[in-house]
Amino acid sequence: MNLVEQKVLDEAVIVDDHIILVDSFLNHQIDVELIFEIGKLFHDYFKEHQINRIITCEASGIGIAVVVAHYFNVPMVFAKKNKSLNLKDDLYTSKVFSYTKQSTSSFNIKKEFVNEGDRVLIIDDFLANAEATRGLIDIVNQAKASVVGIGIVIEKGFQPGGQWLRDRGYDLHSLCIIDSIKNSQIKLRNESVI
Amino acid sequence: MNLVEQKVLDEAVIVDDHIILVDSFLNHQIDVELIFEIGKLFHDYFKEHQINRIITCEASGIGIAVVVAHYFNVPMVFAKKNKSLNLKDDLYTSKVFSYTKQSTSSFNIKKEFVNEGDRVLIIDDFLANAEATRGLIDIVNQAKASVVGIGIVIEKGFQPGGQWLRDRGYDLHSLCIIDSIKNSQIKLRNESVI
Repeated sequence: MNLVEQKVLDEAVIVDDHIILVDSFLNHQIDVELIFEIGKLFHDYFKEHQINRIITCEASGIGIAVVVAHYFNVPMVFAKKNKSLNLKDDLYTSKVFSYTKQSTSSFNIKKEFVNEGDRVLIIDDFLANAEATRGLIDIVNQAKASVVGIGIVIEKGFQPGGQWLRDRGYDLHSLCIIDSIKNSQIKLRNESVI
Repeated sequence: MNLVEQKVLDEAVIVDDHIILVDSFLNHQIDVELIFEIGKLFHDYFKEHQINRIITCEASGIGIAVVVAHYFNVPMVFAKKNKSLNLKDDLYTSKVFSYTKQSTSSFNIKKEFVNEGDRVLIIDDFLANAEATRGLIDIVNQAKASVVGIGIVIEKGFQPGGQWLRDRGYDLHSLCIIDSIKNSQIKLRNESVI
């Protein structure tokens, strides 16, 4: 069992059969030691893939992606949701629905920050329906770059995003896969009920 | 001249007399080596202050604050803008106007993630009117914690935020202070015109 799986079992708060909160260590308060361990685990897994760019989306992915980029020693780019006054240049854009926010937003990356031929590792904190991941893949494809891998900290294995990505041949590596949340118990893939 | 000042002079894109873009290295694409140097510089400056928590706001502050928290070996918390379905528990909230987005949003931090007596270092990428910083100070005050310092990567010295904070006794440390942007020249405080 890796440190992420241990932390999920020890500290995740179960809200209902579909939702856990990990905001005490991953996406609101951040346990920095854990984030560095996550960076190392992704680097160990993807290090042979000549990755030259890490891409994530704001906001929760940023802290993780920065540390991953540190281990790969490559630049990190995060997609911005919606547009500010300072973001109006040539953009790659993709529409993304967020279940947790119950709204559609656009992911935007300036064209100059993803280049044709780039070998991209997509990083995010959560994977459920893969809406965000598909938005990022769409942007990488628009740029004629390649998605070499997808690194997810926590995958909800009972929602279809992971299967959808694996069926299409993406090298998806999730550090913790939750198969079910039932009767206040989290069941991890390849682990017995805790 | 530190690395941030050098980078601003070399790579910032001047939009007009008030706005520069640093999105090639700081707040869209991130130069990870630079971010780690920034973390070291803030640690060098604030290391004697028994800081036990780093606070920033989404989104651009997150990548920097994670690295600062790494050097201090303390948890980082980022204020979330607006509320998601998963953020409805007891919150500290402050209203903040964003000039670049031309809208007001609320900064939200769960009460359990800032404790009475905490010694907080606030981190952000930019300081102009200090709207965001004041929102974070407000939250720290609500929690009866102390703002021990404020670390800013780029301060627009020609806007009033920095002076406002210094006048009130805050230990504000900006790694790069821009005194003016005129005739396509950036003038740094304590530096000659480039």
